[in-house]
Amino acid sequence: MAERTRDPAALVEGAVSGDRGALARLLSAVEQGGADARSVGRLTFPRGGSGYVVGITGAPGAGKSTLTSAMVGVLRASGDPVAVLAVDPSSPFTGGAILGDRVRMGDHVLDDEVFIRSMATRGHLGGLALAAPEAVRVLDAVGYPWIILETVGVGQVEVEVVGAADTVVVVVNPGWGDSVQANKAGLMEIADVFVVNKADRPGAAETRHDIEQMLDLSPAAANASWRPSVVSTTATTGEGAGALCEAIEAHREHLVASGDLARRRRERLDAELHRILVERLRERAVALGEGARYERVRDAVAARQLDPWSATDELLDAAGP
Amino acid sequence: MAERTRDPAALVEGAVSGDRGALARLLSAVEQGGADARSVGRLTFPRGGSGYVVGITGAPGAGKSTLTSAMVGVLRASGDPVAVLAVDPSSPFTGGAILGDRVRMGDHVLDDEVFIRSMATRGHLGGLALAAPEAVRVLDAVGYPWIILETVGVGQVEVEVVGAADTVVVVVNPGWGDSVQANKAGLMEIADVFVVNKADRPGAAETRHDIEQMLDLSPAAANASWRPSVVSTTATTGEGAGALCEAIEAHREHLVASGDLARRRRERLDAELHRILVERLRERAVALGEGARYERVRDAVAARQLDPWSATDELLDAAGP
Repeated sequence: MAERTRDPAALVEGAVSGDRGALARLLSAVEQGGADARSVGRLTFPRGGSGYVVGITGAPGAGKSTLTSAMVGVLRASGDPVAVLAVDPSSPFTGGAILGDRVRMGDHVLDDEVFIRSMATRGHLGGLALAAPEAVRVLDAVGYPWIILETVGVGQVEVEVVGAADTVVVVVNPGWGDSVQANKAGLMEIADVFVVNKADRPGAAETRHDIEQMLDLSPAAANASWRPSVVSTTATTGEGAGALCEAIEAHREHLVASGDLARRRRERLDAELHRILVERLRERAVALGEGARYERVRDAVAARQLDPWSATDELLDAAGP
Repeated sequence: MAERTRDPAALVEGAVSGDRGALARLLSAVEQGGADARSVGRLTFPRGGSGYVVGITGAPGAGKSTLTSAMVGVLRASGDPVAVLAVDPSSPFTGGAILGDRVRMGDHVLDDEVFIRSMATRGHLGGLALAAPEAVRVLDAVGYPWIILETVGVGQVEVEVVGAADTVVVVVNPGWGDSVQANKAGLMEIADVFVVNKADRPGAAETRHDIEQMLDLSPAAANASWRPSVVSTTATTGEGAGALCEAIEAHREHLVASGDLARRRRERLDAELHRILVERLRERAVALGEGARYERVRDAVAARQLDPWSATDELLDAAGP
């Protein structure tokens, strides 16, 4: 049975032909990091590039999951399969929260063309900033044309994670200050589409106005070829989900027509290569800072027979490439 | 003229024979980081080990500089030269704030046996966590028996910096909450001596009581062989500065008698070696992530002819040790 094997190549073949268990195992390997994650990456990377990644971020409670569920409904109506990757750096347990996923995305639980996965870092040394794009790449490689990457946009890491998307959707709620918070968190700069969710509540028009004003004042927005659109939604009823998908589609068409899609993906790849280099060198630093050779060198430094710089020279030379 | 040369060895010789200009140049090199800083480190490291380092930390406005000035007075009365290194990570300009130093330490400005230096990171890639111990090492190597390392103890870096001292003095002020703040910032755990400065103000006795109570409840303090002493001072009048120097001397005697001085210095060296390894590997990551080879590899990845892991393999292999 293919889904029971631990051979990454067989798992990739299984996942490509629709075996969801095999796909789940590939994503677990990516979460764990290390050699297995790299094998999965090497196998899936050449197959990718055709999926489109939508990032959804915003403060906790903004209604991202409900909105994602509504978007999945719209996308599924057009016949396309959809994968959802929900990233929650604050919880080490979401990786196994299958029941939680089913509750969140209850509408789509019986739909075989919807794949939902929550993700935490677990063992990955590079953290979510490395693990999330690798997971997206797996979902891309096995053939999902739409990958929704949902994350809580409150920290630097989350902003980095959602930056791996082709279109970034920032969700805010009506009420004074919410758009200001988004601005503070650096979300204004990465948003391609703004959503004012819970638009049935008081203050929705003012919040739209705040966002438009911030965009008017933003030097980044003034120089950009794309002005972020602002969409109002009520995710609980599904209202506005269609308009959101149209706004995403419009942004996608802009990216393709302007050549920005290729440029953005190239820049992301650049950033990712740098992260991988730093991670691998950090692994090396850990390895260099322990063991018999390290202890001998450290003792020589403690005895002032060797200075710290010559000591690290010696350790680095001995380590090889 | 020796102080004009850029040869580090000549600067070290000059500084050791009392040339303050040469010493200032050595410290500037250390601040800048890079190859010059390493040359200075290699030259000064073998000469060090005899100076005693007192770290002084506490929130801004606690009176650390005034207290340092009062301590310098007490130490100078015994005839020993004193060096003061004031570290301020929040300011990129303190490195050149000679006038500020003179005002702060006005009492000692005409004393040739007192050397005062403010320090910021400038170019040092490893930051103050690496630059400060290197600067302390220079002051140690040129023969100062007392080195006072003053830093604002509000962040993780500052706590790391002051952790390079043999005796750590934490300064708080009377008033509810100040000792609680010190506890939160992780200062309770690193303090060897507490100072309640501005002891002429209301609440000094209560603050002493708070500190003693926290020490009673601290599991770390319960297991330690040294219970931090608590000294009251009024730095503006110099009151208590003598008692503070006695408390520092008592801690020093305890460290020597227990063998903890050698153990602590060894542990610090260990931490510093790890920091140097990480810094050098990070420099390497920067170097690997640019240039013609990098661009060729990145382009191959962008064209999906190469996966990111094989790409970094190739870069790492080419880099050599």
